[in-house]
Amino acid sequence: MNENGEVFSGGEIAVDGDRIIHVGPAGSTTGDFVAEKTTGGDKMVALPGFVNCHTHASMTLLRSYADDLPLMKWLQEMIWPFEDNMTSDDNYWGAMLCCVEMIMSGTTTFADMYMHMDRIAESVEKSGLRAVLSRGMIGIAPNGPQALEESKEFIKNYNGTAEGRIKCMFGPHAPYTCPPEFVQQAMEYAKELNVGIHIHLAETRGEFTDITEQYGKTPTQLMDSIGLFELPVLAAHCVHLDDKDIEILSTKKVGIAHNPESNMKLASGIAPVQKLIDAGAVVGLGTDGASSNNNLDMLEELRSASFLQKVSTEDATALPASAALGMATREGARVLGMEKEVGMLKPGYKADIILIDMDKPHLYPLHNPASHVAYAASSADIDTTIVNGQILMENRRLLTVDVDEICAKAQECADRLVKEAAGK
Amino acid sequence: MNENGEVFSGGEIAVDGDRIIHVGPAGSTTGDFVAEKTTGGDKMVALPGFVNCHTHASMTLLRSYADDLPLMKWLQEMIWPFEDNMTSDDNYWGAMLCCVEMIMSGTTTFADMYMHMDRIAESVEKSGLRAVLSRGMIGIAPNGPQALEESKEFIKNYNGTAEGRIKCMFGPHAPYTCPPEFVQQAMEYAKELNVGIHIHLAETRGEFTDITEQYGKTPTQLMDSIGLFELPVLAAHCVHLDDKDIEILSTKKVGIAHNPESNMKLASGIAPVQKLIDAGAVVGLGTDGASSNNNLDMLEELRSASFLQKVSTEDATALPASAALGMATREGARVLGMEKEVGMLKPGYKADIILIDMDKPHLYPLHNPASHVAYAASSADIDTTIVNGQILMENRRLLTVDVDEICAKAQECADRLVKEAAGK
Repeated sequence: MNENGEVFSGGEIAVDGDRIIHVGPAGSTTGDFVAEKTTGGDKMVALPGFVNCHTHASMTLLRSYADDLPLMKWLQEMIWPFEDNMTSDDNYWGAMLCCVEMIMSGTTTFADMYMHMDRIAESVEKSGLRAVLSRGMIGIAPNGPQALEESKEFIKNYNGTAEGRIKCMFGPHAPYTCPPEFVQQAMEYAKELNVGIHIHLAETRGEFTDITEQYGKTPTQLMDSIGLFELPVLAAHCVHLDDKDIEILSTKKVGIAHNPESNMKLASGIAPVQKLIDAGAVVGLGTDGASSNNNLDMLEELRSASFLQKVSTEDATALPASAALGMATREGARVLGMEKEVGMLKPGYKADIILIDMDKPHLYPLHNPASHVAYAASSADIDTTIVNGQILMENRRLLTVDVDEICAKAQECADRLVKEAAGK
Repeated sequence: MNENGEVFSGGEIAVDGDRIIHVGPAGSTTGDFVAEKTTGGDKMVALPGFVNCHTHASMTLLRSYADDLPLMKWLQEMIWPFEDNMTSDDNYWGAMLCCVEMIMSGTTTFADMYMHMDRIAESVEKSGLRAVLSRGMIGIAPNGPQALEESKEFIKNYNGTAEGRIKCMFGPHAPYTCPPEFVQQAMEYAKELNVGIHIHLAETRGEFTDITEQYGKTPTQLMDSIGLFELPVLAAHCVHLDDKDIEILSTKKVGIAHNPESNMKLASGIAPVQKLIDAGAVVGLGTDGASSNNNLDMLEELRSASFLQKVSTEDATALPASAALGMATREGARVLGMEKEVGMLKPGYKADIILIDMDKPHLYPLHNPASHVAYAASSADIDTTIVNGQILMENRRLLTVDVDEICAKAQECADRLVKEAAGK
């Protein structure tokens, strides 16, 4: 996809090391460049890899574990008792399973918030993906202060590692779990280490009402009042916003991770995405964790984002195909502050590229490649995934990880955790 | 999936001729039954094939041809000029492409309304699918009366053909294109030939307002007032309904085809599906045509149906996985009046069966098969599709049709039609 949101086809992309050095018609790469390897084919189109702006990688272990439940019952009776027993190894195998699924569905960068982040970093290092990692912190929990110190250590140790594929942020969970003083402490540390903040914001109607009652300010305005948005911020969800919230988020260029399928499945609400975009906000896409989605499929996510905006605004022109594809790539990179590195197919950008095989019956006849990709393609049509110049998947075959081992280990971890949660 | 909406696994299904004769644990088929052929495997689960209650098969030729446009601009400037030039052969190749995609995504029965229905019947006959076919009739068009006579001929010639795989209905397009007298004429003919009526109903807010202004009755109440619902009726969309409409549709057991993705993409609105179900209505699922979807993927459709009900009712327990799977199978069969033949895995039922390969990373770990299928699986995970006891696809390989020829022909037809539409 070039800058105009078009899917790239009928040409060639030259990669040297970890960077794109040329994008143009077939045969247009000049100079003495000789490709060591070529991949792709006539029926393939290229896009920048998808940027999944909000997920909880290890929660793939909870996929389909607890569905169709009201939010609090889901959290309190199912998710938390399961998570309570999750070990460092569980987190690692859950994250590895997540990495496999993301590579296979064309995600090249993801933003994660969870526990045992050193093990998530290990999965990123091994799988070859690019990630922005945050240790989730609950300010009202007894271990809140400890979590802050551990986050600091984690960021010092991991920010910029894995050939630069790993970046870090502080992760105060949400305004309703982290009082302003706690968020401010995280902000101080973030300034000190020159990193951003990843937070859940205005996800549910309950949060909006409770915070507004408690502080006399909406969640967005509360966070604005303590200066949060002067820092680089990745705000997940942003579903319940008033007009002033929209103005704040847009003016302060807060990175918004829109998670339509999670918001639908958990009945959280419909984020005013078209309004945010019209106001100049920076909006990317996320899948959220697999327990509230239940897959990590960004193609499905961008389709849902588009369709949901169209129906909720009663305007069939809302969030068109090219804009939805842009959200999943270029805008996602802006949300993560990586817009000069990834999200576009341009010389100088990191070689994070996916190839989609258009030679599938459900992609015939070919009228408009961008519409086909946005509205008809499936993640199984993604043939090749490249990150940082390294091919992670080619012809649907994974090259950096042992899929069978990962699936077996994930099943083993999940089975044990189910038993332990039931034994409580 | 058995009667309780559970996905069937860990057992065997015996088929004799076109019927299921046994469903049970491995090794439980008794008597002197010896399988000529076995298919499937340990990691497969079985479901009844999907029933797509509303589509326009030949419109696959218009996939991604006109997207992100307001409804009337879409219809008047793009769709109709394209359709004006569609020949009998165009309809055939469009329908064949549709059949390929449906087989590959697990649909075994579809209900169609379009033109040149003899050629759609030919595609059904050849591909091995099961279908309910209606020639679409515009009552206010000059050829309205002729369309009625042609429909009658078509139904006489084709109802019950293709080893019983083809059934027919009359297809008055919609209340806003077919005045009551025209619908009544179709009803007379339908009674005479003992078939049902397939109609679009209450799809858009505009239709609801216009009909209510013109007749002093909602579209649903107008159709009720002329006795339409005393016949077997397949009503597509039913988005804009008042409480009395819901009561009528539920009491009269009108077959409702809910098309969530089309309703989202065209910004038509959100059908009150949970309310209809609570009132006892019969609600199945449809994809609508590929030009307003843009694929014919029933797994994606049932996921969208579930998620859309959850978010629009602000209730995460609305339309749970098993209910959504039921809508796509058993309830769809009820909508088409075929509930004694298809839609369940039960002895005596037609052998319309799909096998889903659960050995995919995005389907690990396995907690709940129904949730996995409803919320995480992709149509590419469907390994095997069987209709009327005949295997149409096995291990993703199509056995009744030449996919390459069909894709090439469909592209050829589409290219010519685009040129002709542009030349207008």
